[in-house]
Amino acid sequence: MSRPADTVGRLLVRCPDRFGIVAAVSSFLSASGANILSLDQHATATYGGTYFQRTEFALPSRDLDGLRAAFASDVARHFGMDFTVTDAAAPKRIGVLVSKSDHCLLDLLWRTQRGELDVEVAVVISNHPDLAPAVGSFGVPFVHVPVTPETKPEAEARQAELLAGVDLVVLARYMQIVSGSLLAAVGSPMINIHHSFLPAFVGAVPYRQAKERGVKLVGATAHYVTEELDQGPIIEQDVVRVNHRHSAADLTRLGADVERSVLSRAVRWHCEDRVMRDGNTTVVL
Amino acid sequence: MSRPADTVGRLLVRCPDRFGIVAAVSSFLSASGANILSLDQHATATYGGTYFQRTEFALPSRDLDGLRAAFASDVARHFGMDFTVTDAAAPKRIGVLVSKSDHCLLDLLWRTQRGELDVEVAVVISNHPDLAPAVGSFGVPFVHVPVTPETKPEAEARQAELLAGVDLVVLARYMQIVSGSLLAAVGSPMINIHHSFLPAFVGAVPYRQAKERGVKLVGATAHYVTEELDQGPIIEQDVVRVNHRHSAADLTRLGADVERSVLSRAVRWHCEDRVMRDGNTTVVL
Amino acid sequence: MSRPADTVGRLLVRCPDRFGIVAAVSSFLSASGANILSLDQHATATYGGTYFQRTEFALPSRDLDGLRAAFASDVARHFGMDFTVTDAAAPKRIGVLVSKSDHCLLDLLWRTQRGELDVEVAVVISNHPDLAPAVGSFGVPFVHVPVTPETKPEAEARQAELLAGVDLVVLARYMQIVSGSLLAAVGSPMINIHHSFLPAFVGAVPYRQAKERGVKLVGATAHYVTEELDQGPIIEQDVVRVNHRHSAADLTRLGADVERSVLSRAVRWHCEDRVMRDGNTTVVL
Amino acid sequence: MSRPADTVGRLLVRCPDRFGIVAAVSSFLSASGANILSLDQHATATYGGTYFQRTEFALPSRDLDGLRAAFASDVARHFGMDFTVTDAAAPKRIGVLVSKSDHCLLDLLWRTQRGELDVEVAVVISNHPDLAPAVGSFGVPFVHVPVTPETKPEAEARQAELLAGVDLVVLARYMQIVSGSLLAAVGSPMINIHHSFLPAFVGAVPYRQAKERGVKLVGATAHYVTEELDQGPIIEQDVVRVNHRHSAADLTRLGADVERSVLSRAVRWHCEDRVMRDGNTTVVL
Repeated sequence: MSRPADTVGRLLVRCPDRFGIVAAVSSFLSASGANILSLDQHATATYGGTYFQRTEFALPSRDLDGLRAAFASDVARHFGMDFTVTDAAAPKRIGVLVSKSDHCLLDLLWRTQRGELDVEVAVVISNHPDLAPAVGSFGVPFVHVPVTPETKPEAEARQAELLAGVDLVVLARYMQIVSGSLLAAVGSPMINIHHSFLPAFVGAVPYRQAKERGVKLVGATAHYVTEELDQGPIIEQDVVRVNHRHSAADLTRLGADVERSVLSRAVRWHCEDRVMRDGNTTVVL
Repeated sequence: MSRPADTVGRLLVRCPDRFGIVAAVSSFLSASGANILSLDQHATATYGGTYFQRTEFALPSRDLDGLRAAFASDVARHFGMDFTVTDAAAPKRIGVLVSKSDHCLLDLLWRTQRGELDVEVAVVISNHPDLAPAVGSFGVPFVHVPVTPETKPEAEARQAELLAGVDLVVLARYMQIVSGSLLAAVGSPMINIHHSFLPAFVGAVPYRQAKERGVKLVGATAHYVTEELDQGPIIEQDVVRVNHRHSAADLTRLGADVERSVLSRAVRWHCEDRVMRDGNTTVVL
Repeated sequence: MSRPADTVGRLLVRCPDRFGIVAAVSSFLSASGANILSLDQHATATYGGTYFQRTEFALPSRDLDGLRAAFASDVARHFGMDFTVTDAAAPKRIGVLVSKSDHCLLDLLWRTQRGELDVEVAVVISNHPDLAPAVGSFGVPFVHVPVTPETKPEAEARQAELLAGVDLVVLARYMQIVSGSLLAAVGSPMINIHHSFLPAFVGAVPYRQAKERGVKLVGATAHYVTEELDQGPIIEQDVVRVNHRHSAADLTRLGADVERSVLSRAVRWHCEDRVMRDGNTTVVL
Repeated sequence: MSRPADTVGRLLVRCPDRFGIVAAVSSFLSASGANILSLDQHATATYGGTYFQRTEFALPSRDLDGLRAAFASDVARHFGMDFTVTDAAAPKRIGVLVSKSDHCLLDLLWRTQRGELDVEVAVVISNHPDLAPAVGSFGVPFVHVPVTPETKPEAEARQAELLAGVDLVVLARYMQIVSGSLLAAVGSPMINIHHSFLPAFVGAVPYRQAKERGVKLVGATAHYVTEELDQGPIIEQDVVRVNHRHSAADLTRLGADVERSVLSRAVRWHCEDRVMRDGNTTVVL
């Protein structure tokens, strides 16, 4: 239980699995005056795996910094933990990269506006000017950064500058390859929406490939961006049923609905501190 | 983590929500030498709700009885908890009531045979003799107990006798109303599969009603049996898409696939000690 | 096959089922120089049922009026057919009634803008002023018509005036009951989105009822409006999985996504002349 | 409409698309005294594509052979049609190849027994003896044909002999590669169930690959067998949601349910003469 005056915090923990972790964490929180609101954990194997835990707690003292420091010395060191402590009330700041397709972008902006997605959209950057008016009507900054093969380094430098300090970058149907140097320069995690049910149909024209292969379902995949194109850890996927009557254009239209809902769920989970990486896969707690 | 020699136990807890429950339970387990394998909990409200927790743990000492007694005095009393401690390795004994339809029954027997469902089917009781050979081929006892309006009390007495000592009764398309006195005489929980998406289409002919109403999805509902027909706590539901071409017979056929998968999931979850009642609803941990 | 210069027409037919309808219709079209692009039909029973057929055809002569007149005298009279002939290239004019919730309305406007929904939104009428800016940004007329118990007759008269001549009225989460006299005054079909999986949870607070009943799926239903509240012919339904963790507010949020996609599909199918009424049910061809 | 005494026939047609096909076919049937019960068609392109049509009709004269001959000379020749005329009342004879997994096989046998699948299972052939008792309890012939690398040619010769004259071969989790020469020797179409959502995870261990890639859905694909492994025309696919908690063994268990339902649907559609090949894809009418 929590009272309105409490700070609600989230503790994410990753460490080698061993005896007594839940007890150690919950006793620490209890001794710190924090009350556990929810707790979810996962161990990747019965022996010798990796242990993941997400704990939400109410903290009447409101002193998250003190708690973080105490946890580091009292618990994390002993178990060899990676951990983060975040304030649930602090919305994540996100930057969005987009090209011409509006469906994923508008869905994010609209869910943010109606309070479904607890984020602050710091900036939308596009390599095309087309979506400026739509973004403007939400009161969100829009920056047009053209990208050509020749200007890509300068363009990425500008993007990195605009994205400095965001907590998350969302590629909402951004049709350019993000270089390893942009990834490194930004530093924050990036989530991409791929318009296929990965690992089927990697590459740029999945709906055409899907039509040619004659599949009976098409899908979308939200994943973290890594240097290997279309190979990053998958956060969420979904599909929709199609048949021989659907043209590649129909698949594109039907897929758009799946893309926007898959991306929205992935962004929501990431921003609620639910997604932890486990090698090239994810644990969603 | 657990070692092969450990006993794996499951602790289910329900109590008024208050500060420190997770810490108290996990510290108790830790102090008892038990290692937490998984922990899931739920509070029904931010303040003053009911708290539910399911914890799986490995116990090297293998002394579940000792642990149960210690938990009662050391933790449960203090928090006013209802709780159970079960041995994960002990399959639940179930009794099945069935009429003429075989699909739900065969699915349960087949999943049990292939090890998907960790139960021991103690007896199958039917008011018709038709399914005796099918049940026999699984090596499971089948008893024909005819039911007529006149003989219902004697029939239920016989059923109660046959079901004495089972952990769970499954009504796998049993087309008779179970009386309150049979419920009381058996004592164990009963799970029924209703062939509609409750609360739509209560009663005996849901597919015909569904066809008449022109719904575009039909479904099935697994719920605990209470004295109020079709009103007990829902454990699981699912649906399948239908259209104007489907006759009431088609709905029955399509629905049968949903019924058997919904019932199997509900029985599995119950037998894994995942389902706790919360008034007339369920918490599935 | 069709050539770009052809008019594409749609012929909808309903009549008592009898021998030779497909042959009569297709021979008529063939003799009229029309080429059949698609044909779908349905008979409600093996004997003595009602027959429904939807045929799309390409007409090089472009003379739909002539074809309609000829069909009436040459085919429809003989078979006792109700029929319509429409021009596939002529978008339906729709009027929308809405209250404060924006999700269904915005989805319709956005799909129309991106060309997914081939309609012309003639007017949006709301009993609240809140959505005026959002509608305005799509360049669509918005009219605020307040409704109170006292002013309902005048309000409905004003609504009828604004809706005169539309092909379809869409109730996109309009939280007022539409009277039989408004239905009659408007004359066009009306499609409503109900925020539950009808016939479960009729009435105004389905998500609260769903939470109380503890269902594991919530849904939405698009149906034609009749004088009997929530009882009209169902066009489309869908559901989303929920669990004990979801509050009534969560159900509302999750349901909103289902509502908008169900309503969009129903409006699309209606506007493509795919939906025919069969008593209190629909045939979607 | 049809009368009980009528023969119900199915006419499948494939030809280059051109003007007047529906009219020609339906006029022919009408002139032959046949009444159309259902008609579905598909053209792969607006111009110059391939045209597919499936027509079910009632034939009071019961003379399907005469109708077939007349159709060949009166209609098919003119339009350059491939076509078949089948008797809807004649169940297809199928042979099943299987290894050790029982779920797909039992589902086919059980649906056949309860009348859901209108087929006659002529023989079940396995490279292992394990499933003999299960198959025997359905009264279906079971033949054990061991396959080793050395004996494969002889084994396939024996399989071809046993499968002579069947209308369809179903590979119900048969873990051997079917050679081109067996395909040719049998001559009938073969349907395979692949335990992944093709084209993702081709090969023999898809669930392990799925676990490693961290996908959030696993699926199954029913497809016609061609000489290229896992590359044949897809008939049906479906998926089930999974998460980080599911082991590769869990994926196997969850996938088994999808496999059996996908395979059953594909076999049903094939045996109802609904599936036509279009290059390496299928049209399901």
